[in-house]
Amino acid sequence: MIKVAVLGATGYAGIELVRILSNHPDVSIEFLGSHSFDGQKISEVYKNFVHILDKECKELDLDEVAKCDVAFTALPHGASKTVIPQLIEKGLKVIDLSGDFRYDDISVYEKWYGEEHSSPELLEESVYGLCELHRDKIKNARLIGNPGCYTTCSILGAAPLLASGLAESKNIIVDAKSGVTGAGRSTNLAYSFCECTENTKAYKIATHRHTSEIEQELSKLAGEEIMISFTPHLIPQKRGIFSTIYINLKEKHTTEEIVNLYKEYYKNEYFVRVKDKGDLPETKFVAGSNFVDIGVVVDERLNRAVVVSTIDNLFKGAAGQAVQNMNILFGLDETTGLKNAGFYL
Amino acid sequence: MIKVAVLGATGYAGIELVRILSNHPDVSIEFLGSHSFDGQKISEVYKNFVHILDKECKELDLDEVAKCDVAFTALPHGASKTVIPQLIEKGLKVIDLSGDFRYDDISVYEKWYGEEHSSPELLEESVYGLCELHRDKIKNARLIGNPGCYTTCSILGAAPLLASGLAESKNIIVDAKSGVTGAGRSTNLAYSFCECTENTKAYKIATHRHTSEIEQELSKLAGEEIMISFTPHLIPQKRGIFSTIYINLKEKHTTEEIVNLYKEYYKNEYFVRVKDKGDLPETKFVAGSNFVDIGVVVDERLNRAVVVSTIDNLFKGAAGQAVQNMNILFGLDETTGLKNAGFYL
Amino acid sequence: MIKVAVLGATGYAGIELVRILSNHPDVSIEFLGSHSFDGQKISEVYKNFVHILDKECKELDLDEVAKCDVAFTALPHGASKTVIPQLIEKGLKVIDLSGDFRYDDISVYEKWYGEEHSSPELLEESVYGLCELHRDKIKNARLIGNPGCYTTCSILGAAPLLASGLAESKNIIVDAKSGVTGAGRSTNLAYSFCECTENTKAYKIATHRHTSEIEQELSKLAGEEIMISFTPHLIPQKRGIFSTIYINLKEKHTTEEIVNLYKEYYKNEYFVRVKDKGDLPETKFVAGSNFVDIGVVVDERLNRAVVVSTIDNLFKGAAGQAVQNMNILFGLDETTGLKNAGFYL
Amino acid sequence: MIKVAVLGATGYAGIELVRILSNHPDVSIEFLGSHSFDGQKISEVYKNFVHILDKECKELDLDEVAKCDVAFTALPHGASKTVIPQLIEKGLKVIDLSGDFRYDDISVYEKWYGEEHSSPELLEESVYGLCELHRDKIKNARLIGNPGCYTTCSILGAAPLLASGLAESKNIIVDAKSGVTGAGRSTNLAYSFCECTENTKAYKIATHRHTSEIEQELSKLAGEEIMISFTPHLIPQKRGIFSTIYINLKEKHTTEEIVNLYKEYYKNEYFVRVKDKGDLPETKFVAGSNFVDIGVVVDERLNRAVVVSTIDNLFKGAAGQAVQNMNILFGLDETTGLKNAGFYL
Repeated sequence: MIKVAVLGATGYAGIELVRILSNHPDVSIEFLGSHSFDGQKISEVYKNFVHILDKECKELDLDEVAKCDVAFTALPHGASKTVIPQLIEKGLKVIDLSGDFRYDDISVYEKWYGEEHSSPELLEESVYGLCELHRDKIKNARLIGNPGCYTTCSILGAAPLLASGLAESKNIIVDAKSGVTGAGRSTNLAYSFCECTENTKAYKIATHRHTSEIEQELSKLAGEEIMISFTPHLIPQKRGIFSTIYINLKEKHTTEEIVNLYKEYYKNEYFVRVKDKGDLPETKFVAGSNFVDIGVVVDERLNRAVVVSTIDNLFKGAAGQAVQNMNILFGLDETTGLKNAGFYL
Repeated sequence: MIKVAVLGATGYAGIELVRILSNHPDVSIEFLGSHSFDGQKISEVYKNFVHILDKECKELDLDEVAKCDVAFTALPHGASKTVIPQLIEKGLKVIDLSGDFRYDDISVYEKWYGEEHSSPELLEESVYGLCELHRDKIKNARLIGNPGCYTTCSILGAAPLLASGLAESKNIIVDAKSGVTGAGRSTNLAYSFCECTENTKAYKIATHRHTSEIEQELSKLAGEEIMISFTPHLIPQKRGIFSTIYINLKEKHTTEEIVNLYKEYYKNEYFVRVKDKGDLPETKFVAGSNFVDIGVVVDERLNRAVVVSTIDNLFKGAAGQAVQNMNILFGLDETTGLKNAGFYL
Repeated sequence: MIKVAVLGATGYAGIELVRILSNHPDVSIEFLGSHSFDGQKISEVYKNFVHILDKECKELDLDEVAKCDVAFTALPHGASKTVIPQLIEKGLKVIDLSGDFRYDDISVYEKWYGEEHSSPELLEESVYGLCELHRDKIKNARLIGNPGCYTTCSILGAAPLLASGLAESKNIIVDAKSGVTGAGRSTNLAYSFCECTENTKAYKIATHRHTSEIEQELSKLAGEEIMISFTPHLIPQKRGIFSTIYINLKEKHTTEEIVNLYKEYYKNEYFVRVKDKGDLPETKFVAGSNFVDIGVVVDERLNRAVVVSTIDNLFKGAAGQAVQNMNILFGLDETTGLKNAGFYL
Repeated sequence: MIKVAVLGATGYAGIELVRILSNHPDVSIEFLGSHSFDGQKISEVYKNFVHILDKECKELDLDEVAKCDVAFTALPHGASKTVIPQLIEKGLKVIDLSGDFRYDDISVYEKWYGEEHSSPELLEESVYGLCELHRDKIKNARLIGNPGCYTTCSILGAAPLLASGLAESKNIIVDAKSGVTGAGRSTNLAYSFCECTENTKAYKIATHRHTSEIEQELSKLAGEEIMISFTPHLIPQKRGIFSTIYINLKEKHTTEEIVNLYKEYYKNEYFVRVKDKGDLPETKFVAGSNFVDIGVVVDERLNRAVVVSTIDNLFKGAAGQAVQNMNILFGLDETTGLKNAGFYL
C-alpha cells in the first residue's frame, strides 16, 4: 500500500483527492492536513464521508507526514513554498496542485505570477505532470507540478494539431468555460448561488495565468513560440471545463483527416476519447471521471479547425490527474482507481 | 462472478444500475436490454461509458438472458408483466424496480394502480426489498420488489418511531421533495430545463401511489393500520429525495431521546447515518451514494417529532438498493460495490 | 409624486424595492441609503440599473431623508432600532421590512427574538402590513411592519380555512420551501453556488422566528390560540416560497367545497389567485410578481385539507408588498406599479 | 393605441412579446394566434398571466388580424411563408421573428437555409430590424425581419471596430454561449432538465445559420466581405447570450482607445451600455431587459481586441427588439415600454 498524505484536504481539489483515493485499491490515506479544520474529522467537514472516512484533519506535522510515501499538496498559493522543500528533503514524492512547479522557465513564472520564485532549484528538477505528454519524465520525478484545469483541457485539445506541423502558429484562440468549483471553496460574494446561477461572464481576459502554461506546452509541441488568446468564462454549473479552440490550418484539410490525426495521436491513451466526425463532447460525459473528450470540426470555408475539448476540472483537471501521476510514479497501471464512468446524471 | 442482465438499461434507473454494476467486483454484465436502442452500444446512448462499457443493447432475448444468474427489470409499467414470470421460470433471480411486486395485499395494489394484478401468485411469493427491514426474507427470495424512491426515504425515516410504540398513529404527514431524475428519461414539456429550473411545485397530492407502499410498511412496524398524508414535490435538482416527516408523540420526549432511539435502531446498518442532535441532513451528503441520512428534532411545544430523511433517488432509491438486494441474495457482503462517498460537489 | 427613501437599498430586498419603485408611476426615488456602498452609484452595485437609475447611495442622513414622504427600511436587524423612531418623529411614514414591528404582543417578540424590544410604544402603534388582512388599519398607520416572506405565503394560504371555523385548531403543519435570495446578499459559505445548487435541506426546525408571526395571525383569524409546526427548507433556486399546509377539517368536505370557500374569501383580492380544483400553483407562475397563488386538495380519506401556496419571496414576500402597503397608505390604487405578469422564464 | 396581433403567441418568444406588450402604454393586444392552443386562454397556457391577460388564443383568422395595425409573427419556419404576404396585402405592418426576411441577398438565404425563398419580392423590400444600425430604413418599412438572438449580440459587439477601419477582416472569431430558452418551447430530450443542467456543449459548429446574418452585417459595416468562425454553445441557464469576439487590429491600440471608440459609436444609443475599461458585462445585468452590454479588452501582446457582448436572448434578442422596431415604425419614443432594469435576481 502506498502511504499518502493530502495537505489542504478540505479545499475542493483536496476533498476530490480524498474521494478518489478512498476508492483506490493500493492506497492508504495516512495524513489529512488542514489548517482551518485542525482537529475536526474530514467527515464533519464533508458529511458525505461519514462511514467512509472519519479520519481527523490535522495541522501540518512534518514528522508524521514524513512516514508517507507521497504527499499531495493542494495548498493556497504561497503556503506550499516552505512545505514542499521540506517534504522533498524528507524523501517523499510530492505532487503539487499549485502553479509553482509547472514551468520550464523561471522567468515565465515570475512574469505571470508577478513575484520571485522561492525554490528555483526545485523548479528546475520538477516535472510538468500532464501525463499524456510527459509520462516518461514523470516516472522518475521527485516533484510533479500537477497541471491546471484550463490547461489540461486546452493543451490536450490542441496538442495533436500543434505537434503535426499542420497548424499555423498565429491566431490560435482558446475560449474556455469553467464550472464554479474552479474557484475553490470560496466565500466571495461573486460565487454565491444568487450571483452565479443563471449567469455567465468572462474574467481576466488576456491576463489569466493559465495562458502561460498553455503557451509553454504548445510551443514545445510546435517547436516554435506560440502565443494564444485565452479567455476564461464562468458558467453556472459545478463541474466542467469546456475549451473551444480555433486553429488555422496551413493547407486545406477535411474534418475526417483531422479527426483521424487526433485518433492516431491518442490511440494509446485510455483517458482521451476522440469523437467520431459529427459527434461532439459535452461536459456531462466527463463529469466525475478522468476522461478528456475531444471533438473536431474543420470549417472548410475558412481553413480553420475548431476543436472542442472537455474535462471535469476537479477530476482530470486536478485530483484525478494527480492520482494518475501517482500511479505512474509508483509503477501502477495508470488507470488504477480511475476507471469509472462519469456521473452523467 | 454473478452474471447479470439489466432489462431497461437505458432509462435513468437502468443506466445508474449499469454504472454501479460496472464498478462491482463480483459482477459480470452479460445482457443489456433496451427496446428503444436495440443494436446501439450503451456508450452511444450514454457517452460517459465510452472506454468503460461499450456493450451493445439488445431487444429482450429470453434465451440469452436465461444464461444469467439475476435480472434487474427496470421496465415501463406493464412491460414487466409478461417478462418477469418467464425469467422466474427460467430459474433466474429477479429484482424488479417497478411497483408491481411491492405489495403484501393484492387489493392494495389494485386500488392504487387501478387495474388487476397480472401475476397474483408471484406477488404472493415476492419479497419487498427494503433491505434494512426485510433482509432475512430477501436472502431466500426468487423475486424482489425493489422499493420506490419516495418510499425508501420515508419509511426508513419513520420506522424507528413507528416500531417503538412512542408515536401516535394519526396525523402522520410525509412532505417529500424529489429531484427531476425521479421522473425518468422523459421528453414531457413539464420536465424541460426551462420549465423546471427555478421552479418548485407539488403534484398528485393525496393520490400518489407511493402513499400505499409507505402505509403498508408503517402499518407493519406499528402493528396497526397507519394512514398518512403524502405530498410529493418536484424541486430543481437532478438527484435527491428529501422527506420531512411529522409524527406526534404519545408522551413528552426530548430530541436527545428520539435521536438515541434512532441511533439504537440503526446501529448495525452501514447505509443509515443518524445525525447527532443539532445536525441535519442535506441531499448533497447522499447524492451518488447508497446512504440514507436522517435527522430528528422534537418540537417540545407540540410534542411532535420532525424527522428529515434524505437519499439519492437513483441510488438508494433505485439502483443502489437493487444492488444491495443482489448482494444479500448472493451471500456477498451487503456493501460490496456500494461503499463510496457521495459526490457532494 | 410620492417622495421615497429606501434605507438598505443594496441588500436583495432593498434592490428589489428599487427595481419596483423605478417602474412606479407615482414615485420619485429621493434617497438611497447604504452603509456599505456610501458614495457609489446604485448602478455600480447592481449593474442592471445602468441607464435606468444612476443615483448615488449614501450613508443615512436624517435631514435629507426627512424631505421624503415615506421611508422603506430594509436594514439589518438592530440597525433599524434607532433610525425608525427618528423617522417617525420627522413625520415620515415608515414601512419596515425587518421583524421588529410585526407583533401585537411584545412578549411574543421578546420570546422568539431573545431580546428586549427597543421601542415598545412604536410597536404598539405599528400595524402588521399583510395587506389582504389588515388593509383598513394600514390606511392610517404611521409605521408598518411589513410581513416576512414565509409568513405572507403561509398565512394567506391558511387564512380562509382558519377564518371559516371548519378547521381543527390542532395539528396544523406548514412545510415551507424557500429560494436562496431569502438568505439575502450573503457571503456565507452555505449560500455559495457549489454548496447550494443540487441541494435541499431543512433548517431551524421548530425554532424559526416566522413561526410566531404565522401563529399570531392564524390565532386572530381562528379566534383561538393556534400553534403550528413550521419547517423551512432551502431549495436550489433564486426566488420563490412554496408552503405546503396541512389542516385537519372538523367535518367531511370535498375539494370543491374548500376551493369555493377560498374563492369566495379572496374574491376581491387582485393579488390572490385561487386555483380551480385539479390545478396547482408553481413558483414560476408568481416569480417576479406580487401574486399569491393558492391551490387546495382535500384528502377525503383523512379529512384533511392540503393547501399549497406560493409567492415570490422578494416581491410579494418583501418589496412588492411594501409597495402595496405604500399604495394603500397614500390612497393610490393598490395595484399601481405592481400589475405585471411574473417572469415565468 | 396601436392594435397588435401576436401570431405564435405561445412559444417562448411569443409569450415574451405578450409579456412586454402587456406593459406597453400605447398598445392594445387584439389578437393572440396559436395553432396548438386554439380556444385556450393565454393565462391557461402561461399561468403567470392570470389576472393580467386572460385573452383567448385563436387559430389564425385573417379578417380579425386585418383589424390590427401591426402583426408580430413568431411562427415556426415555413408557417410564416403564406401568412406574411397576406398580412402585408391587408395593409398591416409585419415584424417577423423568423429568419426569412433578414437577408439582402436571396442567394445567401438559399445557401444557408437549403431551400428556395418563397417571397423574393417581399424579401427585397423587407428591412433588417437591427434598430441601432438600420433605424432610418425601419421607419418606413412594411416588413421587418427581426434579427436573431446570436446575431444581435454579436453584430452589435463587433460593429464599432468593423466600421472604424481599425480591424483586420480576417480571423474574426465569434464564440457564443446561449441559454436554453434559445431552443424555444421544446420537448426534445436534449433540452430536458436532467440533460441540460450541469452541462455545457457546442453545436452546429461552422454551420449555424446565424453565421450568415452576422457576416452580412459585418461586411456592410466593413465595406468588404467578412467571413467569421461562429460557434454556438448551450449553457445551463434560461436566458442570456454571451458572445466573445476576437478581432485582430491592424495597428497597435490600447484598451482605452478601443473602449472610447465604442463609447463614441454608441453614444446616442440608450440600449447599448459600453463598459468602462476594467469592467465586464455579465448576462445577469441584461436578463429581463432590452440592454446590450459590451466590454472590450485589447490584448496588447497579440494586437487583438477581445470584445464581450451580452443580451437577453428572449428580450433584446427577440421580443424586446421587436417592440423596439414597432416603436420606431409608429413614431413612438424608441424606449417606450422597454425602459426597465433587468431582473438581476
